[in-house]
Amino acid sequence: MTASPTASHAFDRAIALTAAGTNLFKGEVDDSFQNMVGPFGGVTAATLLNGALQHPERIGEPVSLTVNFAGPVQLGAFDLEAVPLRTNRSTQHWLLLQKQDGEVVTSATAFFATRRETWSEQQHEMPAAPAADSLPQLVRSERNWFRNYDFRYVSGLFDPSRSDSTEDADSETLLWTRDNPARPLDFASLTALGDVFAPRIFHRRQRFTPAGTVSLTHYFHADTEQLARAGDRHVLGHARATRMHNNYSDQVAHLWSDDGQLLLTTTQVAYFKE
Amino acid sequence: MTASPTASHAFDRAIALTAAGTNLFKGEVDDSFQNMVGPFGGVTAATLLNGALQHPERIGEPVSLTVNFAGPVQLGAFDLEAVPLRTNRSTQHWLLLQKQDGEVVTSATAFFATRRETWSEQQHEMPAAPAADSLPQLVRSERNWFRNYDFRYVSGLFDPSRSDSTEDADSETLLWTRDNPARPLDFASLTALGDVFAPRIFHRRQRFTPAGTVSLTHYFHADTEQLARAGDRHVLGHARATRMHNNYSDQVAHLWSDDGQLLLTTTQVAYFKE
Repeated sequence: MTASPTASHAFDRAIALTAAGTNLFKGEVDDSFQNMVGPFGGVTAATLLNGALQHPERIGEPVSLTVNFAGPVQLGAFDLEAVPLRTNRSTQHWLLLQKQDGEVVTSATAFFATRRETWSEQQHEMPAAPAADSLPQLVRSERNWFRNYDFRYVSGLFDPSRSDSTEDADSETLLWTRDNPARPLDFASLTALGDVFAPRIFHRRQRFTPAGTVSLTHYFHADTEQLARAGDRHVLGHARATRMHNNYSDQVAHLWSDDGQLLLTTTQVAYFKE
Repeated sequence: MTASPTASHAFDRAIALTAAGTNLFKGEVDDSFQNMVGPFGGVTAATLLNGALQHPERIGEPVSLTVNFAGPVQLGAFDLEAVPLRTNRSTQHWLLLQKQDGEVVTSATAFFATRRETWSEQQHEMPAAPAADSLPQLVRSERNWFRNYDFRYVSGLFDPSRSDSTEDADSETLLWTRDNPARPLDFASLTALGDVFAPRIFHRRQRFTPAGTVSLTHYFHADTEQLARAGDRHVLGHARATRMHNNYSDQVAHLWSDDGQLLLTTTQVAYFKE
């Protein structure tokens, strides 16, 4: 096998899989994307999607992906079962199970399809925002995974260290983001970028609390050609919550390429304490 | 077993399951909720959720559910495998597979949890709408499943038979709905109600086209107590699309009880032709 142009990128190393039998891959979690407990969920989601992307029976491109974070992912080896549950003429449904020591730590389902050109329309316009290059890059290193992303906040920064730290009136964030160092966008990296928003409860209350995503769903509007057009430039992300109630909060978010095309609609439900 | 007060309701008959072994149920699809191809997807989703709800090892209440419509559900018998993938102290992750003739027709994952009282806040207010009782009930019988729901449209009706049928400027619908005849709201019926919106592409273009949901995700904000408070009254639903592109459209929707509490955030991706 020849090395891909991005093979030396931390992201590609983190999601790498080795074929290990029928519907089975093996991988390794290192600490390069470490978050509070286990790796950044976006990289875990991208790793599971990669099980379908790398599978020899795969047809089409990702249209939807749901990832359930069932238990803490430990540093070290994992198995990834990637099972094509049903293959139709131009669509395919996947079950993906990440296991450590025989126990499920992450589960996912994915839907792939071969798309044809149809009548198309984008209903949700990109919010107005200053250009990414005109904004300062946030430098933060409390967690390993922050180093692998370039964040440029337009509004809604969660920063418990700021001197005027008070609750924010809403739960919204608008930011430009991309891999750091820059890396051409693809389905795996877009999957991870869809999970870069801090839990809405942190932002809303401007303080930490034990919290974490339990389930995440991506709808990919972009196809390979649109991802190629987005290149390695920043994407604009907007996230908000609609309700926080008794330990669980949702999040509804969208990511656009810098020319205003909606690439991803993503939702998640996150646990929070107290 | 004693009959539940709602056992004679068409909805309860449609989602009924019989235990058939470890992690296995059996059920039967009749034509009472028939849609264009197979039964109304909301009832299929509720049937899969019911596999976890009825399982003897289930803990807690539904927090999230993703259902993937892998192939046409035929009239007649099905098997439902309901597997608790991982059980933690107060949370539980499920895999649910509906099979006919040994083939997966629907797959799902669900996350259940025992909730505790926490700081809570609703960010997304209920849209203004006239009371359900002040609006006419839509009477339509082209599909069997329509008869089992009471629809009262505030705006955004898809009606290809109307004389001024033209494209609509947006993809939004606002409507009151409940079971018909009325039935106290629970997790299963809320699951089905979350899927009552016509495909956004029908509404946007005001014409039929081959179309159907391929994946649906629900986040349940309501707990049992809030569902009980909602009683058998109408819930208000709002749905919109954010992008339609090359065969696939998303939908982002919310359902509120009539006192303004957000019960459900729900998203889906639907196939459409041309």
